[in-house]
Amino acid sequence: MLMIPGPTPVPENVLLALAKHPIGHRSGEFSQIMADVTANLKWLHQTQNDVLMLTVSGTGAMEAGMINFFSPGDRVLVVHNGKFGERWAEVAQAFALDVVEVTAPWGQPIDPTTVQAALDADPDKAIKGVIVTHSETSTGVINDLETISKHVKAHGALIIVDAVTSLGAVNVPIDEWGLDVVCSGSQKGFMIPPGLGFVTVSPKAWEAYKVAKLPRFYMDLGPYSKGAAKNTTPFTPPVNLIFALQAALKMMKAEGLEQIFARHHRHMLATRAAVTAMGLPLYAPEGHGSPAITAVAPTTVDAEQVRSVMKKKFDIVLAGGQDSLKGKIFRIGHLGFVCDRDILTAIAALEATLSELGHTGGTPGAGVAAAAKILTA
Amino acid sequence: MLMIPGPTPVPENVLLALAKHPIGHRSGEFSQIMADVTANLKWLHQTQNDVLMLTVSGTGAMEAGMINFFSPGDRVLVVHNGKFGERWAEVAQAFALDVVEVTAPWGQPIDPTTVQAALDADPDKAIKGVIVTHSETSTGVINDLETISKHVKAHGALIIVDAVTSLGAVNVPIDEWGLDVVCSGSQKGFMIPPGLGFVTVSPKAWEAYKVAKLPRFYMDLGPYSKGAAKNTTPFTPPVNLIFALQAALKMMKAEGLEQIFARHHRHMLATRAAVTAMGLPLYAPEGHGSPAITAVAPTTVDAEQVRSVMKKKFDIVLAGGQDSLKGKIFRIGHLGFVCDRDILTAIAALEATLSELGHTGGTPGAGVAAAAKILTA
Repeated sequence: MLMIPGPTPVPENVLLALAKHPIGHRSGEFSQIMADVTANLKWLHQTQNDVLMLTVSGTGAMEAGMINFFSPGDRVLVVHNGKFGERWAEVAQAFALDVVEVTAPWGQPIDPTTVQAALDADPDKAIKGVIVTHSETSTGVINDLETISKHVKAHGALIIVDAVTSLGAVNVPIDEWGLDVVCSGSQKGFMIPPGLGFVTVSPKAWEAYKVAKLPRFYMDLGPYSKGAAKNTTPFTPPVNLIFALQAALKMMKAEGLEQIFARHHRHMLATRAAVTAMGLPLYAPEGHGSPAITAVAPTTVDAEQVRSVMKKKFDIVLAGGQDSLKGKIFRIGHLGFVCDRDILTAIAALEATLSELGHTGGTPGAGVAAAAKILTA
Repeated sequence: MLMIPGPTPVPENVLLALAKHPIGHRSGEFSQIMADVTANLKWLHQTQNDVLMLTVSGTGAMEAGMINFFSPGDRVLVVHNGKFGERWAEVAQAFALDVVEVTAPWGQPIDPTTVQAALDADPDKAIKGVIVTHSETSTGVINDLETISKHVKAHGALIIVDAVTSLGAVNVPIDEWGLDVVCSGSQKGFMIPPGLGFVTVSPKAWEAYKVAKLPRFYMDLGPYSKGAAKNTTPFTPPVNLIFALQAALKMMKAEGLEQIFARHHRHMLATRAAVTAMGLPLYAPEGHGSPAITAVAPTTVDAEQVRSVMKKKFDIVLAGGQDSLKGKIFRIGHLGFVCDRDILTAIAALEATLSELGHTGGTPGAGVAAAAKILTA
C-alpha cells in the first residue's frame, strides 16, 4: 500500500488498460485516443492553452517548461522553499540562465509579498520569468500560487509553475489565474504509473518561445504542439501509458473536479488532525499544508523507524525526508487514488506503530477518532 | 497484429508484468529489480560499459547520447542514408555542433570507404565524434557498422551509434567493436512498449563527458551513472515499464543471443525471398537488408492500398514510407517478439492482398512457398 507522493496507487481498471497490447502510434485508432485524452487533459487543467504530453519524468516536464522560453543569460526569478524548488534553480543554472532567488526556509510557505518586492525592484523588466513550486513535495507545504501569480502578472514576466503534486489534487485554474506554463507528471494526481510529463503553454509563452534561443530538440515543445493539433506526437509516445491515462481521466471526469479537490482537502484535514491528536508535530504550519502530502517531524520516536515498522508490520510505504530532512521527518502521501478508508487504515497503522515504538504523546485511538470525525462530518 | 518497426508485439507475460501495481522507486525491492535489469542489459548489450536507462523515446536516447560528450562548435561527422540518420544531423545542429556529413542515397547502404575518406581528410582530428545509424528504420537498410567502427577507432573520434532497431535483433558486440555510445529504445528488440531509452557509455566517452559543455540536466548521464551504481535512478523511473523489461530480458536470456539473432536473420531472409517470389521489388539491395524490417517498393500496386487492405481485411499493420518515400514503399516489421508463424501469416495475407489489388507479377502461393522453404531449412 503506497502512501508516498508518487508513484501513487493505480486503480485496477487503469492497470488493465496499461496491459493492453500496444497499437501503432501512427494509426487512426491511436489518433482518436489522443483526441479524447487531449480534450480531457484540457478539462483537468481548466485551460484552453495547449496541454502537451512528453515521454519524461516530472523533472523532464519542468525542464521542457523552462528551456523553451528563454535564451542564455535571460534572468529568471526562482521562488523556492524546498528540494524541488531548489532543483529548478539548478536546472536554470545548467542552462546558463541568470538566476535570482526568493526563498523561504524548508517547511515554511513562500510569503507572496517577498515575490512582489523582488518584482517591484525590477522596473526595467529584466526578469523574464518566475518559476514557482505550487505544492512542495519535499516538505508538504503548499504555496499561495493565486496571490503570487497576481504579482507576476502585474510585473509582466512569464509565470512557470511546478504543479507536479498539485495538479489533480487541488484547484489550479490555469486560465483564470493566467498561468503561462504549468508542468506535472503522470504518477501523481493522474493516478497512472510514472513515465509521462505534461506541460501547458499559454499564447504569451508561445510568443516568448519564438525568440528563445536555448538549444532544444527532444524537448522542443513546438513539434509537440503541431503534433497535438493533428492528434499525434513528434516521437513515439508511451502508447500503453496513454491507454492508462485515458482510463484514469475518464474516472476523474466521472468523479468531477470539485469532488476530487474536496476529497484531497478532506484527507489533508483528517491526516493533520490525526497527527496532532497523536501528539506528533506537523512540519507544515496550519493553513499551508499540501492536500497531496503531510509531513510529520516526530521528536519522541525516530522517523526512519516509523517508516520501517509501517512497512514491515503493515506493508504501508511512507516517504522519508530528503537531503537535510533525511531521518527528521516522514511523509504520508494522500494524493491521487486514495479513499477515506485508506486514510483511516494509514492512521490506525501509524498509531499501532507509535505504540510499538514507545511513543507516549497521545491517547491510543485518538488519531483514528480525530480522522474519523473529519471524514464523517 | 503489429508488423511495424515499433511498437513491436509484446508477449503476454510482459504485458502482465506491466500491469502490476507500481512500487516505490526508492525501495529495496525496486533496487533489486534495477540490479537484475542492469546485469541483463549488460548481457544483451555485450558490454562492461555503463548501460543507462532514461524515461525518453528513442530520439531522446540519441539526444542524450550526443549532448553529453560535446561542447558548442565541436565538429561531428554524421553518417546518414535515411530519415533517422538525417534527424541526428538536425539534433547536432540544434545544439550548435559543427556538422559535417557523409551520406548515401535513401535505400542504399553507407560505403565505409567514404567514412574512411572523410576521416583521413581530418589529420588535425577536428572531428570529435562520428554518429552512425546502424539499422536505418526508414528504408530497411543495415549499415556495415563493424567496418565503419574500425575506421573511426583508427581516427580516434568517439563513435556514437543509433542501434534503435538493431539492438536485440542483430549482433552489436559493443566491447568487441569498441563502440563508445550506443542508443536504443524499449519498443523495438526489447519487446516492451515505448517509454524507455537506453544509452551505453564507454570509459573514453566518460573522459569526453568531463570537458563537454553543452547544457544538460534531465539528460545529464552523470547522475544516471551514479544512480545505476547504487541500483537507483536520479529521477522517478517508469516503474511499470521496468517490471516489463525485467520479464522481457528474462525471456531473451532463456532464448539466447545467438538464437535471437538467428531468428531475426531467418525472418529477414524468408521475407525477402517471399517478396521477390511475389514479383515485388525489394527496396534495400541484396546483402544490406535489415533483420528488423523489410521495405518493399511496389510498382504494379499502390503501397498505401496494400497497407489499407492488409489492415482492413486481415488486421495486420504494416508501416508506410516516410517523408519522400510516403506512398512509394511499405515496410514489413519483423523485429522483437516475432515467430516463424507470424512471418508465414504476414506473407500469406500479403499474397491475398496483392491478388485482390490485381497484382499479376507472381504465381499465387509462390511467396508462402519461398518463405516456408527458408523457415523449414
